[in-house]
This record gives sequence, C-alpha cells and structure tokens, in this order.
Amino acid sequence: MFSLRVFCSFVFLSLHAVSGMYDPDEVLDLPGMSFKPSYRQWSGYLKASSGKFLHYWFVTSQRDPVKDPVVLWLNGGPGCSSLDGFLSENGPFHVRDNGATLYENEFSWNKIANVLYIESPAGVGYSYSDDQKYQTNDNEVADNNYLALQSFFAKFPNFTHNEFFIFGESYGGIYAPTLSLRVATGGQLKVNFKGFAVGNGISSFALNDQSLIYFGNYHGLFGEQLWKDLNDNCCENGVCNFYNNSKKSCADVVLHAFNIIYNSGLNVYALYLDCAGGVQSQRAMTHLFRNFRKHWETNQIVDSTPSVQGVPPCINSTAQLNWLNRGDVRKALHIPDVLPAWDICSDVVGNQYHTIYETMKDIYVKLLAVGLRALVYNGDTDMACNFLGDQWFVEQLGQKASTQYQPWIYDKQIAGFYQQFGNITFLTVKGAGHMVPQWAPGPSLQMLQRFLSNKPY
Amino acid sequence: MFSLRVFCSFVFLSLHAVSGMYDPDEVLDLPGMSFKPSYRQWSGYLKASSGKFLHYWFVTSQRDPVKDPVVLWLNGGPGCSSLDGFLSENGPFHVRDNGATLYENEFSWNKIANVLYIESPAGVGYSYSDDQKYQTNDNEVADNNYLALQSFFAKFPNFTHNEFFIFGESYGGIYAPTLSLRVATGGQLKVNFKGFAVGNGISSFALNDQSLIYFGNYHGLFGEQLWKDLNDNCCENGVCNFYNNSKKSCADVVLHAFNIIYNSGLNVYALYLDCAGGVQSQRAMTHLFRNFRKHWETNQIVDSTPSVQGVPPCINSTAQLNWLNRGDVRKALHIPDVLPAWDICSDVVGNQYHTIYETMKDIYVKLLAVGLRALVYNGDTDMACNFLGDQWFVEQLGQKASTQYQPWIYDKQIAGFYQQFGNITFLTVKGAGHMVPQWAPGPSLQMLQRFLSNKPY
Repeated sequence: MFSLRVFCSFVFLSLHAVSGMYDPDEVLDLPGMSFKPSYRQWSGYLKASSGKFLHYWFVTSQRDPVKDPVVLWLNGGPGCSSLDGFLSENGPFHVRDNGATLYENEFSWNKIANVLYIESPAGVGYSYSDDQKYQTNDNEVADNNYLALQSFFAKFPNFTHNEFFIFGESYGGIYAPTLSLRVATGGQLKVNFKGFAVGNGISSFALNDQSLIYFGNYHGLFGEQLWKDLNDNCCENGVCNFYNNSKKSCADVVLHAFNIIYNSGLNVYALYLDCAGGVQSQRAMTHLFRNFRKHWETNQIVDSTPSVQGVPPCINSTAQLNWLNRGDVRKALHIPDVLPAWDICSDVVGNQYHTIYETMKDIYVKLLAVGLRALVYNGDTDMACNFLGDQWFVEQLGQKASTQYQPWIYDKQIAGFYQQFGNITFLTVKGAGHMVPQWAPGPSLQMLQRFLSNKPY
Repeated sequence: MFSLRVFCSFVFLSLHAVSGMYDPDEVLDLPGMSFKPSYRQWSGYLKASSGKFLHYWFVTSQRDPVKDPVVLWLNGGPGCSSLDGFLSENGPFHVRDNGATLYENEFSWNKIANVLYIESPAGVGYSYSDDQKYQTNDNEVADNNYLALQSFFAKFPNFTHNEFFIFGESYGGIYAPTLSLRVATGGQLKVNFKGFAVGNGISSFALNDQSLIYFGNYHGLFGEQLWKDLNDNCCENGVCNFYNNSKKSCADVVLHAFNIIYNSGLNVYALYLDCAGGVQSQRAMTHLFRNFRKHWETNQIVDSTPSVQGVPPCINSTAQLNWLNRGDVRKALHIPDVLPAWDICSDVVGNQYHTIYETMKDIYVKLLAVGLRALVYNGDTDMACNFLGDQWFVEQLGQKASTQYQPWIYDKQIAGFYQQFGNITFLTVKGAGHMVPQWAPGPSLQMLQRFLSNKPY
C-alpha cells in the first residue's frame, strides 16, 4: 500500500513537475481511449510564416519528462502527415482496425522521450495556410518548421533545457537535416540541440535510384534479360549510370525496371508484405518517386491508373482516417471546424512541391562539423528509399569509419547491421520496411534509446 | 440429405477404389489425431540394396486418388528426414507445439496428389541398414532410391498408371534429378513419369557459392569494406571468382563473408525470421555448406561450437521429435522396436556423405531432352541455397526462354516471379525461405497444382 502510494505520488509529481505548459492545447481525454495515460499531451497549432499554421501533437515522456530528451518527429511525402507516425508507428497509442477505439503501443517512443509530432508543411493533415496556397519547396519548409519550433518552445519554455533531437522519415530525409542546419546555426532558437536521425530517408536522388536497380535485381525482381539490358545500355567499362543516363535506350530500360518495382503490384514500402487491396489497387506514388515520375510524365508508358487521393500505394490507413475525422476527435485535438477532412497524404501539397536539393551531402558535412550526432537507419526491405542508397550516402560523406560493419542484437536476435563513422551511424533494421517503428517496434525503440544516450547499438 | 449421402458414398468409393494396396502398412489411427482423415495412409519399409530399408509414408489424394498424380517428396541434408517435409511443410497434418497433438494442414499437397515421403538414405530418420554402415554418395543414394521406388510400386501396383513426379528440397536438388534420370532411362520401373521439381536445391556448388556473395552484399550483410575486399581480392577485369579462387587472400575474405552468413546468428534458412534459441544457439550446418566447411576445416578460423546432434541451425523441431519418438506413434507407423530414436537430421549420415556431382547441369540437359517437365523453385529469402544461384543455373542450361521473367499471383498478391524456358521453369516464392511449403503454404500449393497440370503459374 505504501509503495503504491509512493509510486502514484511519483507519477503525479512527474506529470505535473513541468510547469509553464501551454494549457489551452492540453488534451484531457480522447474518444476511444479506455486507458489512463501516464503522460500529458497537447494538440494545437504552431505559427509558421505569415498565415501558415502547423498542427502539432506533443506527448511527454512516460519515464522522466523533466530530464528526458525532446524528439521531433517528421513524416515525409512530401505531403504526408506526421500523425501517421503517431498513430501507426511510434506514438503512445494506435487506432484499432474498427477506426473507433485506441490501444496502447508497448514500444512507443515516449517511453523514453518527450515526442513532438508536427504536420508539415501547411496543407498536410490538419495544418493549413489562410490563403490556401500550398506550393512550397525544401527551403521554405525548413524555414517554416524552424518558425514552428520557435512557436513550440515559446509555448513550452521549460523544454528548452532538455536535449533536443530531430527525426525525419522518408522525405523527412530532407526535412530533418535542412531544419537541423537552421537549429544548429540559426541563432534565434535557444535549445539544447544534440543531433538528428533519418529513417528510410531520401538522402541523394542519384544514389537512391542507382542503388534501387541493384536492390531490385538481387531481390529477384528482374530476371536475366532485363539485367543484361540494364548493363548493356547503362554501363561502360564497368561503370553504370542508371540515374540520369542521357542515352534513351538506358532511360527506357530503367523505366521498365522501375515499372516492375513501383507499378506491378509489389508493396514498394515493404517487399515481403502484402499490398493492401491486392495487386489491382497499386498506383505509383509519384511525389516521391521522382526519377520514375520524370520518365512517366514524358514517356507515358506506365498505365495511368487514376490516383487515389492521398493514399500511398499498398498502405491501408482507413482506421486512422476514420478516427481522426470524427467530430469529437477533432474537437479534442482542437482542430477548427472550418478545416477540411484529415488525409494521410495531400496530393495538393505533393504535386506542387518543388525539390531543391539533389543530395543532403553538404548539409550533413556541415552538421557533423559542428559536432552533432547523426543516425541514418533503414528498414532493409523497403524499396521507396532502399537501404543501399543510404548506406552509400553515409559511406561517401568522407567520415572515417570508427567501427566495423557489424550486427546489432535485440532480444537475442540479429536486428540488423550498423557501422559508426565518428558521430554518424548507418544502421539497418532487418526485415523492416519503410516505416521502421511500425514494422520493427521493439528493435526501433532500442535503437532510439541507444542513439539518444549515445551508446553502441 | 440425398446429396450428403451421394457425397459420402463418393468419398467412400474414392478411398477404397484403389485396390491392391499393401494392407500390412496401412496406418489406421494415430496418437494425437482428433480428426477423421479423408484419405488413406501407409507407413512401412521399402527394400533398397542388400540389407538397406528405407522408411516411407504414403498418403492418398484428398481429391481423386485414382486419377491424381503420385508425387515423391525427398528432403535433403544430406542426412535430413523427409518426415520434416511431411510434418512441417506439405503433409496433411502437422504436430502442435505441445508435441502431442496433430492439426490439419489446409494447404497439404495431398489435397491434389498422392504423396509419397521416403526417408533417404539409410541411416536417416527411421530408415536403416542391417550393417549400420552409413557412408554413401550421390550415385548410391540414387540407386537405392530407385530400388525403393520399385519396392513401393510393387506394393502399390495400381499407382503405376498415375502420372508420377519427383520433388526434392535442398540437397534433394541432387537426389531428385539423379533419381529422375534412373526412372526416365532405367527400364526396370514402369511408371508414368512426367517430371521433377527442386525447391531451394543445390544445383551447382559453384553457382550457389558465387551468388551467395552477391546475395549477402545486396541484402545488407557485409558493408563497404568487406565488399571492397571481396572485389579487390577475388575479381580481375570485372570477373569475380568467389568459389574456388586459388588466391589465399580471396579465400580468406570469402571465409569472412560466409562466416557472417552462416555463423553470426542469422537464420540461414530464412533471413528475416528469428533464429530459434537466439544468436547463441547458432552453429554451422557443415554437411551442406561445403565451401564454408572446406575453409573451416583447413583454416579453423571459425569458432568451433560443439555440434548439436542432428539439429539444423535456427530450426526448432522439438515438437516433431517428441511426437515421432513416442512408443505409440512408432507402433502406429510400424517402426521396429530395435531402431534408435528418430532425429530430424543424422550427423552420422551427413558427415560421411560423399558428394560426387559439382553440378546437375548434364543431368538436367538429359532429362529435358527426353521431354520431362521440370520446375526449379526458390523461396527468395533463403541463404542455404539462395534463389540467385538456381536462377543462374537454369538460365545457363541453354534452354530458350519461352516467357519473360514475370510475376505470378496468389490470392491477389504477387507471390513471386517466374520464367519458362521450354519445359523447365525457374520460379521464386517471395518472402519464403528454404522450406517453401512451410513458410508459403498457399502459394506453394498453387505452384504444385500449376506444375502438375502443366498450366502457367
């Protein structure tokens, strides 16, 4: 009895020790939640540039919110919502298939960190712009995310002393380092910034596309003739260029290869998982697959299945969609009534998005030079951003290897491989696809814990 | 009522229509079986060469035993039992984890075929030799399997008219074609032989080892330095030889690579599945992994964990082992009391086994020349016999491609890829490991059905 009372007092103190929280945004209860959370949470808006408001959801750590780090989580697309990260990947609770009730996620990242989810840029999810103009680009997104962060820490000033980390997934491979550079050098925002991480990120378009051809062939997707055609048409003296080869014969055969990967019915985000809805439901998610889209738009060879609004191919997000669009859920999350329905990805944002950076190399070099810690991790069965492209990217940063490439262990099993290069680590998560925290939750929480505490994986 | 009576009569007639069955071997009931099978089964012994007796288990088809084909199933090793195929892969029932009770396998191959399982060679499982000498080789095994087949069809003469197919898995990649050649050209045995199939088989030691290096690298197991070392030490003018390179520097680095695959704790039979018992329980199964063993025996670099009798690494066969070794089960299967306990694999057989053939190429060419149908299929996440080695093997047989390399569909999902070369097909089963019918039961039954009926996959 005594120990229980001590424990309860401790939880109470922990939950309320952080003063200066922004009360109007606090989420006190949620439809479909039958359990009592051991953390506090807020949902509301962060002001970015003029008229732009980014929706955030912030959950404190279940361990020690005062001392635990703050982790920012950004999903990619461009145009996809970080609430997918919350409700399907690493958030403290997920939505049951019925779309109505919630269940706790044993491997939530807020077990050990205060986690901030921002829907970015404006136009994504419940984020919006007063003028409803949603054309944007890499630098503008970084600027707006930086402004939103300032707005966040103004609402929650006590967290400026916690260690701070930025995570991006997929196209977040561009959001995270570009934002990190502003945080590291911007001057305005005073936080205890320690590092950034990128999960199945796009780090270099050239390396991503180049490696994907090897990935496809050595995972059995191509066969002898296509592999021969790729080599005959795209390689000279043993050097192959599958990315921006000026020969039409090469571009045609690369398009054929990409068509198998993106358009045949495979789950591009997790090769060995089923495609939700079956092979017929497949469509190219053209926002991200840039080289493929480039060919596609000029050549029009690909069967142009009508685009399903905002749904990435082979992914079933019906449960989240149904739950987030309930009136009572919107109210609990402080979403204005005038905003349209939430969607997992926005074609309006995606289709008008302008990519500025071909590679993140220079930005990584700058970030490492100021002493930041970095982690590039990849579920190794993803084809949207395959592990090999990111492995090559890290290897080519010019950092000296400080460990061998070696296995890491979770629960007595090889969870993947990693290699340390000074302050940056490349790490694979074996058998996981694009959404690592969703498909390898246990290993992914261990990875987070090791990265945040700067320990070997 | 009427239709039910007709149906029951039909089942009764089907089950008993096949006269001339060998009564003493019939299995009438089995410990742990709570359901009534819709097929007949026999277990007993087939006489091979002098003093050698091979244990068989034969189950009739659940569809139409009179008309359905007879399929022979052989597991590999060498030294492993085909009852693993029965009880874990494609048999009509499997053993529950409790090791005591049985449950029906929805995707049993006897849904559409009469299936014969033979434990081969003598010394494996419940097969034995009177002199207890278990040294043998590829040709002797083929001879004995051929004699055993004669013994089988003498016991079950009515099945000589059914179409007949031979399947081998793993080292069965040598058993199946060598036996097929004897059946096709032997003259003694008169059966309606139509073709053979090999699942994750060893078809060429050179191609298996050569391809494994590429498989390992492009599945993220090696890292940059090892890949560079492999290329620097084993390749000249863009041509690599990882198999029998005479340079010690190459052999050393290949050994290092094989060590990661076989000895680091990965599940060599299914890269993305856990290793039963965790990384510590790992050991090299040296019977099959010949090149690795060759290095291992001469260099002694590998940590020589004591061999666990008969258990392949990362595989848990406790349930089968417990069930098959019960006295009442042995009695029901007509196993003589004097025989020792059943084990999934025999080190006595495996360690003394002499491999004669480096490649099955000549034998395949002969078998295709006499008009037989062939299927080489591979679960594409296996590293013991990786898909790429078998793909290259089929491509290099000199048969003209008659289809493109293309996906095949099971239940609205891409189940893998295949390509037809006249009478021989190469086919992958996506996401499955070494034991395809165990890890992709639905696709595997469809594959069987298409192969037996000579239809496109």
